[in-house]
Amino acid sequence: MRVDRLITDCRVATMAAGGVAYGAIEDAAIVVQDGRIAWVGARCEMPVVEAVETDRLDGRWVTPGLIDCHTHLVFGGDRSGEFEQRLEGATYEEIARAGGGIVSTVAATREADEDSLYASALSRLAGLVASGVTTVEIKSGYGLDAETELRMLRVARRIGCEAGVRVRTSYLGLHALPPEFRGSAAGREAYLDLAIDQILPAAHAEGLVDAVDAYCEPIAFSTDEVSRLFEQARALGLPVKLHADQLSDGGGAALAARYGALSADHIEHSTDAGVLAMAQAGVVAVLLPGAFLMLRETQLPPVDLLRRHGVAMAVATDCNPGTSPVASMTNAMTLACVQFRLTPEEALAGVTRNAATALGLAHEVGVIAPGMASDLAVWSVERPAELCYWLGKPMLHQRYLAGTPAR
Amino acid sequence: MRVDRLITDCRVATMAAGGVAYGAIEDAAIVVQDGRIAWVGARCEMPVVEAVETDRLDGRWVTPGLIDCHTHLVFGGDRSGEFEQRLEGATYEEIARAGGGIVSTVAATREADEDSLYASALSRLAGLVASGVTTVEIKSGYGLDAETELRMLRVARRIGCEAGVRVRTSYLGLHALPPEFRGSAAGREAYLDLAIDQILPAAHAEGLVDAVDAYCEPIAFSTDEVSRLFEQARALGLPVKLHADQLSDGGGAALAARYGALSADHIEHSTDAGVLAMAQAGVVAVLLPGAFLMLRETQLPPVDLLRRHGVAMAVATDCNPGTSPVASMTNAMTLACVQFRLTPEEALAGVTRNAATALGLAHEVGVIAPGMASDLAVWSVERPAELCYWLGKPMLHQRYLAGTPAR
Repeated sequence: MRVDRLITDCRVATMAAGGVAYGAIEDAAIVVQDGRIAWVGARCEMPVVEAVETDRLDGRWVTPGLIDCHTHLVFGGDRSGEFEQRLEGATYEEIARAGGGIVSTVAATREADEDSLYASALSRLAGLVASGVTTVEIKSGYGLDAETELRMLRVARRIGCEAGVRVRTSYLGLHALPPEFRGSAAGREAYLDLAIDQILPAAHAEGLVDAVDAYCEPIAFSTDEVSRLFEQARALGLPVKLHADQLSDGGGAALAARYGALSADHIEHSTDAGVLAMAQAGVVAVLLPGAFLMLRETQLPPVDLLRRHGVAMAVATDCNPGTSPVASMTNAMTLACVQFRLTPEEALAGVTRNAATALGLAHEVGVIAPGMASDLAVWSVERPAELCYWLGKPMLHQRYLAGTPAR
Repeated sequence: MRVDRLITDCRVATMAAGGVAYGAIEDAAIVVQDGRIAWVGARCEMPVVEAVETDRLDGRWVTPGLIDCHTHLVFGGDRSGEFEQRLEGATYEEIARAGGGIVSTVAATREADEDSLYASALSRLAGLVASGVTTVEIKSGYGLDAETELRMLRVARRIGCEAGVRVRTSYLGLHALPPEFRGSAAGREAYLDLAIDQILPAAHAEGLVDAVDAYCEPIAFSTDEVSRLFEQARALGLPVKLHADQLSDGGGAALAARYGALSADHIEHSTDAGVLAMAQAGVVAVLLPGAFLMLRETQLPPVDLLRRHGVAMAVATDCNPGTSPVASMTNAMTLACVQFRLTPEEALAGVTRNAATALGLAHEVGVIAPGMASDLAVWSVERPAELCYWLGKPMLHQRYLAGTPAR
């Protein structure tokens, strides 16, 4: 059999569920054809192939390309000034009064043109790619008007076309109430009309929306408001996901379950009923340890409860300028282990198999198995646990995207 | 005037103390001659020079090359397996009984030859260098016998000769009591004789020791034992430093002050008297946020007390296989800000000016000023605070070591 590529002299963490730890295969080989895995297994059992290219990896470990399933990668400006002011003693109120907080990112994003949004997103994507990422989710939500929300989503699509990663977009119009709509119930209602009945359908018509997200929290949007958004998503045939129960138990996890969401994200304050509902509906729990660190939170997500009910756990960077300026997938994995007590195998499943499920891509990426896209990360490590153990040590040897070598 | 190099079109954080924040100069220029800073200032005030090389930095920020003043960079093996076992529920006792803990690193280091110790140290150094480090301190302390302690120090010297960084070595024979000396007071005494009266003088005779360090803690060595070591250091004319008060207040800070130590490191549990003694003796406080994170410590170092008494604070990775597998200086800076509430300017001073003082190199590196070595880090950022704000975003554009460009 003639094939495009043979990857050999390697160890493979297939991340297939249910078998040995990490789905590990020692002395393995991977056969790639047409950008997909044609065969993976122990080298001694490999079928006879004639490969156009043969890559010998000197015993390195191969994992599925990592998947960052929750990011706000596209935004204007940054909030390092605010970060500094807070550490110099300014209160959140003082910063908000000076125009800081999410409002400042909205203003900077509205001002930025497509090229500058693209360039600044690439500077952060560089960190993700250097830590093995091959698929990244990118949300809108700093535009909060039709023009800027669509511009953010177009930039996300452009990253998917030009920057060497797969991209899944999420429309996050219900991220915050934009300043120009604040101060009255009528204003709030008007923004909901705009975000739900106008911007979302327009973005969808342009093919810019892979999923619909919202920030469900007393300081943001209520479960009723999110339900209205989710009804629209359902009408348009779009999957949903939710920022849920980050700062308080507001019934977000249960709401996500009711709508069969792909994922409920954050969920530090979700309780037993919410987790049980997630389990029954097959909702993935996306854990975000970067925000936990940066906000110095103390309420841990209910990891034991998630394990007990068999809820799949994903881990993501939440890369955003306010609460998680994190641009390394391996940094996020280390933080998930150290802070949330995930095992390294759980953390790696959380950025491969379970992250793929959280994006509706479980049929395509996240596991090294025949038929899956050949997105791979090759690591200069002796065991997979090192990916979580080291903080800041460069370990990536190379990536493959759809079977093609990529840095 | 003919000069070797002109660095221009940049902003400079000189980190000179006492003036504007970061010692910042907008639209600056740096003149380099014979590996040293000949001139630095506002471009409009620059003397007329004819430069062999001119580097235009497109407005990027230049800081002193970063200085990691506390690492255990050279060791055999790693402890990722133990990290994984703990997260899978094994207790410290179970791991110790199975030969884990520092004993396993001592065994792996004794087994490793010089080339393999060098190669594995370089894989970690890569992370430090990628985060702007130009000077690194490296300790012995995983040999705990004459042959291996000297081998570790020779590897450290080789890194300084061949790997594109300046190296300062510390002899850390009193890191732990080696297994073969445990179990009796006579054994303990015999190891102290060996470490203090034989290994240290031998290492010093070979020119391998820049400073003498010890781990002062009830689980390690007492203040009396450390005093005996420090007397020997004094007799040999070597400066001292100390791992002090990490897990309990054992009077380590005060002991360090009594011997005029370069630094007292960790000091989470140091109290007012210890900090005051440090202030009076000019001892630098080296804060190690990586170990704080990895051990999930809750006792913060007394940062306000250090500020109040005017003790200089440095920040380091503590790169080691057990409690701080951290190989990124910028990761450590972020953790120092988020966990210890250092301001970004304090964190940057902690890895430049104050780290230089902690290594006895304040006359040589750590500040961009005439006469200092031209060790520089060039950053693709809009403001210095970004170095602390982003976690895992690649920001380094290039380094200069003694005036010569280096990746």
